Amino acid sequence: MRNSFDIYGIHSIIEAIESDVNIEKIWLQKGKKGSLFQRLEKLIRINSISCSYVPSEKLIKLRNKNHQGAIALVSKIDFVNIEKLIENAFLQTSRPTFLLLDGITDSRNFGAIIRSCAAASVNGVIIPQSGSALINDLSVKTSSGGIFKVPISRVNHLKDAIFILKSFNTNIIAVSEKSDNNLFESKLKKATAFIIGSEDRGINNGLMKLADTSLKLPMFNSMDSLNVSVASGIILYEKIRQNLN
Amino acid sequence: MRNSFDIYGIHSIIEAIESDVNIEKIWLQKGKKGSLFQRLEKLIRINSISCSYVPSEKLIKLRNKNHQGAIALVSKIDFVNIEKLIENAFLQTSRPTFLLLDGITDSRNFGAIIRSCAAASVNGVIIPQSGSALINDLSVKTSSGGIFKVPISRVNHLKDAIFILKSFNTNIIAVSEKSDNNLFESKLKKATAFIIGSEDRGINNGLMKLADTSLKLPMFNSMDSLNVSVASGIILYEKIRQNLN
Repeated sequence: MRNSFDIYGIHSIIEAIESDVNIEKIWLQKGKKGSLFQRLEKLIRINSISCSYVPSEKLIKLRNKNHQGAIALVSKIDFVNIEKLIENAFLQTSRPTFLLLDGITDSRNFGAIIRSCAAASVNGVIIPQSGSALINDLSVKTSSGGIFKVPISRVNHLKDAIFILKSFNTNIIAVSEKSDNNLFESKLKKATAFIIGSEDRGINNGLMKLADTSLKLPMFNSMDSLNVSVASGIILYEKIRQNLN
Repeated sequence: MRNSFDIYGIHSIIEAIESDVNIEKIWLQKGKKGSLFQRLEKLIRINSISCSYVPSEKLIKLRNKNHQGAIALVSKIDFVNIEKLIENAFLQTSRPTFLLLDGITDSRNFGAIIRSCAAASVNGVIIPQSGSALINDLSVKTSSGGIFKVPISRVNHLKDAIFILKSFNTNIIAVSEKSDNNLFESKLKKATAFIIGSEDRGINNGLMKLADTSLKLPMFNSMDSLNVSVASGIILYEKIRQNLN
């Protein structure tokens, strides 16, 4: 595992971003001013880095160190460029599986999903730059090492990934409880990308419209959903099953 | 949901046990003595109630109240008698599904499993009296209401449940990564009880020997297991799939 480390101070973080260090998240001190600070804010915007403004006390609490107005959490993993991820997948197999995670913010669920992806030999996981779970100690631990075995891409918008996947003739399937199609009647024999939404908000409407089709899991007892990592696992393994023969 | 409440004091807890109040767990003050205390200890033993001895300060911290040497956590749900649970299941369907949870102590995983059981219309979940996750606010919440929809039995030993299930001609399947049988080649068309072990210790050897057969999930990338709630969900849904036709 890559050693976890943080970068402290505005100047150091600017240098890190300009050197393409993979930054997971930045916390900035609320109310801080100055031209260097503004330059950092601009870099954060341009690079769509996840960022929160917090009071100085919270910054101190966060890392128990002199923070100099800004703390950056360096990513534990190397993200793969989206074009490269998709191209590599199609070099490996003619019917790869991709998972697009829309708004999965719980690190434990995220870790469990990545663990299933590794076990199910998923060819690529794609997450949006902001609004995703942090790849922190908890997600690394709950992935049970899977996070180092599955190529992961981080994109500005998931729809960018969908356009590239479509150009590779990948079937885009939205997983939604509102779907009329039962998982077990769905054909999963070709290249497939599943879009999985968060438990509270589901899949973003814009993404939903880009999907070629949708599917849902059959459910009884008036239950309308499963834990998101459980649902993902069931769908990934149904694809494995259909491709065994 | 049943209102959560605790019972304080040795005398009250003795009365509760003798009145068959469903107690989840008891905390006793370490070093406490006296004949009433001994009578409580004996009742706890006879009824196989989960129990921990802790210092007085921890008892105070636990519930922030005058504890009088003992605190009992009353169960949020009504457990079903094991014979009744199995009989009812066979009255509902000729091929019911049961889940036996051996040592699932994480409340979040337990809740997610129960949620899947409710959605997959599992006919009964069976857990051992001790060494199971507490049915607390977290497990109730993560079950997403499922905990009130699935009959749950708590038994002294899971093997007792297995003997009864066998008398009903139920196929007992141990879920184990050491199995030679692939889930997707397993026949799940009859009455089935799956034994699921904890992630760290797997299924107890004694139980393993009582199983009629075993199965494992196919896995890639040198991964050897999934999150236990994910694995359970995949297996339950494979049984649903096989019984659709």
